[in-house]
Amino acid sequence: MLKGKIEIQNRVSIDNIFDEEKGTLGLIYTPGAAYVATEISKNKELTYDYTSKWNNVAIVCDGTRVLGLGNVGPEAAFPVMEGKSVLFKVLGGINAFPLCIDVKDKEDIIRFVKAIQPVFGAINIEDIESPKVLEIEERLSNELQIPVFHDDQHGTAVITLAALINALRIFHKGISNISVVIAGAGSAGYGIFRILQEAGCKNIVVTDSFGAIYENRVNGIDSQYKKEIANKTNAMKLGGSLADALKGADVFIGVSGKGSILNKEMVRSMNNDPIVFALSNPDPEILPFDALEAGAKIVATGRSDFANQVNNAVVFPAILRALLDLRVKNLGEDILVSVATAIADIVDSSNVKEDYIIPKVNDPRIIRIVTETLKNAIAKHMEKKEQQ
Amino acid sequence: MLKGKIEIQNRVSIDNIFDEEKGTLGLIYTPGAAYVATEISKNKELTYDYTSKWNNVAIVCDGTRVLGLGNVGPEAAFPVMEGKSVLFKVLGGINAFPLCIDVKDKEDIIRFVKAIQPVFGAINIEDIESPKVLEIEERLSNELQIPVFHDDQHGTAVITLAALINALRIFHKGISNISVVIAGAGSAGYGIFRILQEAGCKNIVVTDSFGAIYENRVNGIDSQYKKEIANKTNAMKLGGSLADALKGADVFIGVSGKGSILNKEMVRSMNNDPIVFALSNPDPEILPFDALEAGAKIVATGRSDFANQVNNAVVFPAILRALLDLRVKNLGEDILVSVATAIADIVDSSNVKEDYIIPKVNDPRIIRIVTETLKNAIAKHMEKKEQQ
Repeated sequence: MLKGKIEIQNRVSIDNIFDEEKGTLGLIYTPGAAYVATEISKNKELTYDYTSKWNNVAIVCDGTRVLGLGNVGPEAAFPVMEGKSVLFKVLGGINAFPLCIDVKDKEDIIRFVKAIQPVFGAINIEDIESPKVLEIEERLSNELQIPVFHDDQHGTAVITLAALINALRIFHKGISNISVVIAGAGSAGYGIFRILQEAGCKNIVVTDSFGAIYENRVNGIDSQYKKEIANKTNAMKLGGSLADALKGADVFIGVSGKGSILNKEMVRSMNNDPIVFALSNPDPEILPFDALEAGAKIVATGRSDFANQVNNAVVFPAILRALLDLRVKNLGEDILVSVATAIADIVDSSNVKEDYIIPKVNDPRIIRIVTETLKNAIAKHMEKKEQQ
Repeated sequence: MLKGKIEIQNRVSIDNIFDEEKGTLGLIYTPGAAYVATEISKNKELTYDYTSKWNNVAIVCDGTRVLGLGNVGPEAAFPVMEGKSVLFKVLGGINAFPLCIDVKDKEDIIRFVKAIQPVFGAINIEDIESPKVLEIEERLSNELQIPVFHDDQHGTAVITLAALINALRIFHKGISNISVVIAGAGSAGYGIFRILQEAGCKNIVVTDSFGAIYENRVNGIDSQYKKEIANKTNAMKLGGSLADALKGADVFIGVSGKGSILNKEMVRSMNNDPIVFALSNPDPEILPFDALEAGAKIVATGRSDFANQVNNAVVFPAILRALLDLRVKNLGEDILVSVATAIADIVDSSNVKEDYIIPKVNDPRIIRIVTETLKNAIAKHMEKKEQQ
C-alpha cells in the first residue's frame, strides 16, 4: 500500500467549477461559504446539515499500544489507522480520519480531543495504553458533546459476548451458571468483565501478570479500574496463578497481549466442553490446534487464518454508523449487551456450529440490525432511567 | 452543499477485500499493517512512503477571523475550509483536511499543531486573528519538522506582488521608484509590506485605524510586527490619515477588512496612472466603477464578479504542492518574490492589459512553473546562505 490507503475527495461536482458563467466556485468557496458560515455562527446545530461533520469520525491514537507491537509511536500507528479508516468506509460509509498524535500525557490527549470537536460527529479512541485510556474515555464521555467509542474496550467486549452467546447455545449452558476466566486486565479485559456481568455472568475471575485479581490484593492494583475488577469479581477471593483459576472453569478468554500463556494441561483442567477464546494478536494465548487436541470444544482467536475470528470490524463500523445516524451520546453497558445479542442472533440458530459462532465482517445485515437494536435499546434505557 | 463538500475515500482497491482466499483485508489492516508499522517504528522517514502523510495538509483554523466575518467560531469556519479543501484537491491534488479547532490561546494552538505533525506533510494556517497568528506562524516555522504556510500572509503577498508586477509593466514604472500605501496592518498587510520590500520597493507607508504607521508612534503599536512595520517603512516618519498618505502615491493596496474607506477624492489625489487594489472581501475599500471614474488606471479586487480578481487560489495549491513534493521546510521572502515573478510571467507580456494582470486560477501552467521556480529559488537561496 505504497503512499497510503486513504485520500480526501470532493463530494460536490467540480465540473465547470471555474467556468465564468455557470461555475460553482462562488458557491463552494466565497461568497457562498460566507453565507453558510453566517448561518452556522447563529446556530451551531446547522454544522450537521451544511458540513461533513455528520459523517466524520476522528480515530485518535497516541501510538502507545499499537496492536501487539506496544509503544511504537504515532508514525508507526498511522498505517494501522489508515487500514481502520478503510474498514470504516467500506463497512459503515464513514469518513474516519486517523489523527495519530505526538502527545502522551492524559490531560494533553483530553485537551486535544476537545479541540477537534467542532468538525467531527464522533470520536474513536484507539490503541492508547491502559489504564490511561480508560480514564480518557470516561472523562471524554462526560465532557464532550459528541459520542466517544473506545474500540479496544467496547468493540472487543461486544464481539466477545456475541461469540460467547452462540458458543453457550451449542452446549445449552446459561450465562448465569458458567464460570469465566479472563486473562488480561487492560482495556479489553475491563470491557469484557463489565459486559459479561451486565449480561448476567456471576462467576468471573480476571488474571494479570500477578495472577488472579481479588479484593484487597496488594500487588499491581494500580488504577481505579483494577480496583473495580478486584471488588466486583472473584467472590471467593482466591489468589493463585492462571492455571489455578482455570481449574473447572467453563470459559477462557485471553486478552493478555501475550502468546502461549495457556498450555494443554490447563485446558484439560477446565470443565466439560471447554470454550477457549485466545484473542491476543498476532500470537494467541494458545494455538487452536493445541487447544482442540487438549479437549477444547470451541476455539476462537483474533486471527483471520483460523476459524471463529473474533474481529472488532464486525462491530465498530456498525456501531459508529448508528451513533452518527441516531445522534446518540453515551452507550451504557445494557445497550452494549443488546447489541451483542443482536449480533449473535444474526447467526441463525440452525446454522450455529463449533466453527461458526460469529457473523462474517461483511454480512450486509449487521448495520441495519445494530442500528435498530441501538434505537430500541436506547428507548428502553431512557424508560428505565425515568422509572428510577 | 448539503452535508459537506468533502469525504474520505479509499486509495486502495477494495474489490474482494473480504474474500477468504484472495482478500486484501490482511494486507490493508492486520497483519499487513503491523509489518509496515514495525518498519516505520525503526525509521520514521518511511511514513512518507507507506502512508498518506506525503500528500496530507492540515488546514488549521480557530475561527477567530473568518473571511470578512470576523470571530464567528470554528463551526462557522468549517464550510469555508471545506471549500478551501476542494480547491486544494482540484488545483493541487492535495488531501487537505480542515481542522477547525475549539482553542483560542496562542500556546494551545501551537501545541495542537505540534501534536498532529506525525500524519501531515505540511500545515496551512488559516483565518486566525492577527497578531496572534503571526507569532504562531513564526514559532511553528522554527519548531516543526514540516513546512508551515500561512495563506493570509504568504499567499496574499505572493499574488498581490504578481498582480503589481504586471500592472507596473503596463505603465513602465519600476518597483524601486514607486510609492505604495497599504491600508491594513494585519496578516495580509504585514506579508505584503515584507514581500514588496524584498522585491525592491523603497517607499511604503502602511496605515491602520489610527492612520499612518511611523517610527515611535504611540497609539496602537501592539505587537512586534507593527513595530517592525513602524521601523522599516515610512522613512519620512509622516503621521496623518489614509487620505494624507495617499497624496501623490502610485499604488493603493487595501487589505483593511473594511469596505468603502477609499473615496474618489483620495484616488484623484494620487500620482499619474493610479493603481488601486481594493482587496477586502466581501466589501472592497472602493468599488471598481468609482475608482475608474476617479481616474484609476488599473483596479483589482478580491471578488470574482469584477475584473482582476486577486485570488489566493492561484497561489496556495501550487505552493503547497511544491512544498510537499520538494520536501522544503521554510520559504524565505526571496523565494516568495521569485514565485510571484514567475506567476506574473505566466501572463505573457504581449497579453498583459488593464483587465488581465493575473493568470486564471485554473491555468494549467501554474503548478509546473511554481514547482520549478521554487526548486531553483531554493537552490539559489542555499548558495547565498553558504556564501554568507
